[in-house]
Amino acid sequence: MRTSRLLLATVKETPTDAEIISHQLMLRAGMIRKLAAGLYTWLPLGLRVLRKVEHIVREEMNRAGAQEVLMPAVQPAELWQESGRWEHYGPELLRLSDRHQREFCFGPTHEEIITDLIRREIRSYRQLPANFYQIQTKFRDEIRPRFGIMRAREFLMKDAYSFHINAASLQETYDEMYETYSRIFRRLGLKFRAVLADTGSIGGNSSHEFHVLADSGEDAIAYSDSSDYAANVELAPTLPNPSPRAKAQSPSLAIVNTPNQHTIEEVSQFLNVKPTQCLKTLVVEGTNGLVALIVRGDHTLNAIKAAKLPDIQAPLQMASPEKIKAEIGCDIGSLGPLGLRIPMVVDYAAAHVVDFVCGANKNGQHLVGVNWGVDLPEPKTADLRNIEVGDPSPDGKGMIQIARGIEVGHIFQLGQKYSQAMQATVLDENSQSVILQMGCYGIGVSRIVAAAIEQNHDDKGILWPQNIAPFSVVLLPMNMHKSDRLPEVTTQLYESLLAAGIDVLFDDRKERPGVMFADMELIGIPHRIVLGDRSLDKGVVEYKHRRDSETQEIPLSEVVAFLKQRLQSE
Amino acid sequence: MRTSRLLLATVKETPTDAEIISHQLMLRAGMIRKLAAGLYTWLPLGLRVLRKVEHIVREEMNRAGAQEVLMPAVQPAELWQESGRWEHYGPELLRLSDRHQREFCFGPTHEEIITDLIRREIRSYRQLPANFYQIQTKFRDEIRPRFGIMRAREFLMKDAYSFHINAASLQETYDEMYETYSRIFRRLGLKFRAVLADTGSIGGNSSHEFHVLADSGEDAIAYSDSSDYAANVELAPTLPNPSPRAKAQSPSLAIVNTPNQHTIEEVSQFLNVKPTQCLKTLVVEGTNGLVALIVRGDHTLNAIKAAKLPDIQAPLQMASPEKIKAEIGCDIGSLGPLGLRIPMVVDYAAAHVVDFVCGANKNGQHLVGVNWGVDLPEPKTADLRNIEVGDPSPDGKGMIQIARGIEVGHIFQLGQKYSQAMQATVLDENSQSVILQMGCYGIGVSRIVAAAIEQNHDDKGILWPQNIAPFSVVLLPMNMHKSDRLPEVTTQLYESLLAAGIDVLFDDRKERPGVMFADMELIGIPHRIVLGDRSLDKGVVEYKHRRDSETQEIPLSEVVAFLKQRLQSE
Repeated sequence: MRTSRLLLATVKETPTDAEIISHQLMLRAGMIRKLAAGLYTWLPLGLRVLRKVEHIVREEMNRAGAQEVLMPAVQPAELWQESGRWEHYGPELLRLSDRHQREFCFGPTHEEIITDLIRREIRSYRQLPANFYQIQTKFRDEIRPRFGIMRAREFLMKDAYSFHINAASLQETYDEMYETYSRIFRRLGLKFRAVLADTGSIGGNSSHEFHVLADSGEDAIAYSDSSDYAANVELAPTLPNPSPRAKAQSPSLAIVNTPNQHTIEEVSQFLNVKPTQCLKTLVVEGTNGLVALIVRGDHTLNAIKAAKLPDIQAPLQMASPEKIKAEIGCDIGSLGPLGLRIPMVVDYAAAHVVDFVCGANKNGQHLVGVNWGVDLPEPKTADLRNIEVGDPSPDGKGMIQIARGIEVGHIFQLGQKYSQAMQATVLDENSQSVILQMGCYGIGVSRIVAAAIEQNHDDKGILWPQNIAPFSVVLLPMNMHKSDRLPEVTTQLYESLLAAGIDVLFDDRKERPGVMFADMELIGIPHRIVLGDRSLDKGVVEYKHRRDSETQEIPLSEVVAFLKQRLQSE
Repeated sequence: MRTSRLLLATVKETPTDAEIISHQLMLRAGMIRKLAAGLYTWLPLGLRVLRKVEHIVREEMNRAGAQEVLMPAVQPAELWQESGRWEHYGPELLRLSDRHQREFCFGPTHEEIITDLIRREIRSYRQLPANFYQIQTKFRDEIRPRFGIMRAREFLMKDAYSFHINAASLQETYDEMYETYSRIFRRLGLKFRAVLADTGSIGGNSSHEFHVLADSGEDAIAYSDSSDYAANVELAPTLPNPSPRAKAQSPSLAIVNTPNQHTIEEVSQFLNVKPTQCLKTLVVEGTNGLVALIVRGDHTLNAIKAAKLPDIQAPLQMASPEKIKAEIGCDIGSLGPLGLRIPMVVDYAAAHVVDFVCGANKNGQHLVGVNWGVDLPEPKTADLRNIEVGDPSPDGKGMIQIARGIEVGHIFQLGQKYSQAMQATVLDENSQSVILQMGCYGIGVSRIVAAAIEQNHDDKGILWPQNIAPFSVVLLPMNMHKSDRLPEVTTQLYESLLAAGIDVLFDDRKERPGVMFADMELIGIPHRIVLGDRSLDKGVVEYKHRRDSETQEIPLSEVVAFLKQRLQSE
């Protein structure tokens, strides 16, 4: 395409209302424009990227044998009432009434619609397993839409739903979707992790989120440096240390005065010990009175894990300072396990420390040289803390690293949640009616575009991965309007590249070279060819990859072959 | 694809609630399913057709230099208020409120959104002309949705909007879109006509509708048998007969008694003359009293044309029998031009008749042998009637034929309707602010699928045009599960066809041949290859095109080459 035929709407200034880099760059590069809160128009340049993402998603879903369908965006309330979600979904569900005052919603997801379809159309186990997907505009009425298309109200989504005669078949398709998603994100050229996810309130058996890794991600992900293991930091388990606890170095338990020292940081500095040597005692509400939870001084309590323990209130609730003072007799900063007369649970790592420091349950005093099994009984242990960088990976392979991620995909074993509520059954081999097993598989197609930018940008603009760049190559003729030769040479090269099937942009604007360079770097086209009268005298053009810092000269006659080779090798 | 991996949801019975053939066949072939009134899910087979139509539309729009964008489906009320349409659109506009009680609509069209975008992004005549399109789900809250996807509430539309510095540029793009639409419908393999349309209340200057010709069409279209000329029957002009009126055969005007003979049919039979020899006098309300409109006995008055005459009330209103009786003195069936003392306008054809028969303005009597210029003055003439089969084409080329059509496209010169209301201006060459000229160009993408079926079906099912068939070729192995050889031979042929880039369906179901034949004829796959053990003994397979009545034998080894050749030649 020629820029003269393209709405190239680049902007120099960083828009003030755009908080994250992808939002800023999508506005600046002229990929999107805001229509209203959470509603964006995709301009030609942005839509090219969106369509490339969509195309890869569709190809891989087809390859996996999923069948594309298209369900209405507008859904009748009745089906949502049948599943029970009409009441429970909350104000993110955009409800509306038609001219006859019948209730509908603008679908944020399609479990009810596909389940209704399948219970009518599929009657026999012979038609299973079956997996249906659509790529469709969806709506979620976010209370505070922000971050551009990252958290828009209207967005493009690929949603898929699979149906099965039993859980084993569901697991098989689930595994296949896991592989398909991995292939999709690899083809998109993104660094990603498949992350074990909480199945949460939706029920079901197994769930993975696919995260694009980027510093700006909302979620912290713990992953192994030596395996595929990855999980949300809040969900990743920590393991008991397999080696036996070291012997106590000093058997001498002592009380020390620690006036006005409350936090681990204060106490460890005051006593000149490491935080890893200190234990932190936290008191929470249990179902039968207070309970103490003990973690190592450098660790943080994981509220989700703690709330799953028996006899602990869920969600986790810290005991008030007043209540602690009344029942234990000291302030929060002076708590410790020795002499504590409430039930206590000790984190694996805290139970492995010897000669530890802890509060004395008396204000202004701490104990040093305390040892489990010596000064107090062996503790009741559990996994109570957040996993940290350097911890062993829960799968036993390698060490944990932590990165931030943007959720762009989610696969989920729904089991019989919807099929039960909506009585979606088929006949099995014995002609018995069986409630279907169901899986669902989502990809945020429009969100991927923003996530790709969060992961791939520099101070000049976007650094598109090859497969989703709006154009693969840009031709920049310098001051073409002043040249006798450039219009013809550039046009010939442009047409040769088009004929070779290369997605090329020909910047035929009458602009200064500086403007052209800056625009194309902002837009992030991977391969740049600069044509100038002087280099053409030598029979060469100047090539630069967007990620390179150096340019190189390529003979004009070899440009097509050179680019074909570069594009194939990426 | 293999049928075992496809949701093949064919139905034998004709659904009782489907009135038109395309709706019946789309349900029976398993292309769509109804979710609610006017809301349909596209099943895999139907979606394949829809996507092929979409693909052709996109390719041709791109070829014409239009730029694809994607605007939100949900549109804020403010812009519709600015254009004035929020008040005027009526209940077909699906209005909704978000969680903050802000008003929006589910867009049935996007003039306001694109005009708002362009007034922000395009500032100079140098960026013009520009043409933007999208292919998007739209919503029109029809009071009585019917005919399946032909008149659905949610539908897929291609809408395009062009912007121009002046009317000449608009005309140029309009002409280009006319050609593009013609190319699109030719590639779709449909018989169609570009029909001159009324610009109606929307204003603007020029408009064509594109109609797929089919007996079930809602619109009657007059077209030339020798040129591209076509217009809605109500709009097609009729021309004065260029040859001079014949000489009166009999100069003898006479009064005849015609007791109880009122209609043209009654009078012409009673007097044994042809209806073409009789004149019909119709009295309508004018702005200054009654006016008589006179057409030939076999012609019908065109109310739209008549209402455009000076001194006639618009819309046309017939005078009441009481008023006619009171002012003229006879009943409606006895009116005639001779001696009539109200203004009269005579249709060109009626003014060309000699020796005509007409009412005597006295009940029970008619006049015969009446002649213009002899018995009464030469009349004031105009085009007053509907065009008919056999009339000369208004463009002077050939004769008129009439067919019924389904509107599937519409191109429209909007002029400054929206740009004026929304102050969309650019600077011209002299740095003067100019209000933009605008065109819009719609195609009903989903509707085309139904229209194609209305035009292409027989009693067994659909007859898809090659380019939009869900599959080009189907392989039907007979009783494959009982054969040693068929599974391998068919699979090999299937894979060879796939490798040749042919869109082939392999019916691998364990079904009786009769069921397989019936299903594939219903679905309408153009090319059918039947494989059976007996014909394979002879080294052949059986080929039949869906439109042929006879089968032919093709050597197995030549099937791929044969089909490639057939597919290319269509």
